Amino acid sequence: MHELILENISRFIQLEPQETDYFISILHTKKLRKRQHVLHEGEICRYEYFVNKGCLRAYHVDDKGLEHVAQFAIEDWWTGDMYSFLTSTPARLNIDAIEDSEVIYFDKPSLEKLYIEVPKFERFFRMLVQNAFIATQRRVIETVSMNADQRYCNFIERYPKMEQRLPLKQIASYLGITPESLSRIRSNYIKNHKG
Amino acid sequence: MHELILENISRFIQLEPQETDYFISILHTKKLRKRQHVLHEGEICRYEYFVNKGCLRAYHVDDKGLEHVAQFAIEDWWTGDMYSFLTSTPARLNIDAIEDSEVIYFDKPSLEKLYIEVPKFERFFRMLVQNAFIATQRRVIETVSMNADQRYCNFIERYPKMEQRLPLKQIASYLGITPESLSRIRSNYIKNHKG
Repeated sequence: MHELILENISRFIQLEPQETDYFISILHTKKLRKRQHVLHEGEICRYEYFVNKGCLRAYHVDDKGLEHVAQFAIEDWWTGDMYSFLTSTPARLNIDAIEDSEVIYFDKPSLEKLYIEVPKFERFFRMLVQNAFIATQRRVIETVSMNADQRYCNFIERYPKMEQRLPLKQIASYLGITPESLSRIRSNYIKNHKG
Repeated sequence: MHELILENISRFIQLEPQETDYFISILHTKKLRKRQHVLHEGEICRYEYFVNKGCLRAYHVDDKGLEHVAQFAIEDWWTGDMYSFLTSTPARLNIDAIEDSEVIYFDKPSLEKLYIEVPKFERFFRMLVQNAFIATQRRVIETVSMNADQRYCNFIERYPKMEQRLPLKQIASYLGITPESLSRIRSNYIKNHKG
């Protein structure tokens, strides 16, 4: 049950058996049905989530009621509203499951205690925050400086597994374009990458 | 000479004398004249900078040649293009001094070695990256969701010392407005906060 999260962590830090046990002791697990939320905008994000199975999406809703996908997270990915989690301020994001899913999660007091009990987790979460920071920056830069075709190319090259299992509508929302535009971009892409 | 940076660090972690010595051994110092750059867009940002004296600004230049200030850093602040530093990709930012200044800095290999020699620095840099992440997110959100008056209020409440020493033009560039608009906003602000 904890194989995947332990493997994820072992890519950055090596744990002794008792450290692994301590870490496991702070974890909770939850099964989610498709469409079920783990976070609503305006709530404080009290947990950091690891996707053990399925797929979650983080999105925000603009003044006109339109949804904008900020992030997808499939197995072996972390998700949450890190800004809200770190600052204990209301979340800007909603997070729900777009397939039946299973998440492993822990709360902030447990994480603070983990840093004290097993200091090498400082390193792990430094890497995690670093990656969140890098992804946010990259997203900002690509949104302002690239057209939709380039953003689509980047998306499928970066996340080839996601392209196959996500509804077209969700990918379009992530890229900030209509489903119709995405269909057109996708056909062009396939045509250009055939010969 | 290292008092300020050591005090900055002591807010997050407590160092033993030999750990302090090791940390100091990786530091370099540089005096900068007004307008002198420590980073140009397109270069890889190889250093993380701590402002020991003076004031630096990080800015990017858009396609039309207009400068947009991303961050100011006065004494006791850190600066750099963290995205470039962490990923070793070309910097999007330029960083220069807007007063005669002095910076303390170190390179990435030294930092990696510091993590091994003094693991508690993992904690310190987790906090530093976390704060950079939080500031970036906040900036993105405020830019899209607040008007210039609100952004000016936030700026002077958050950075009261900077308001007094920065040229009007630089603050306007940070807020994404013209110097003329800033003058108007500032007069209104003073009027409203008098009585």
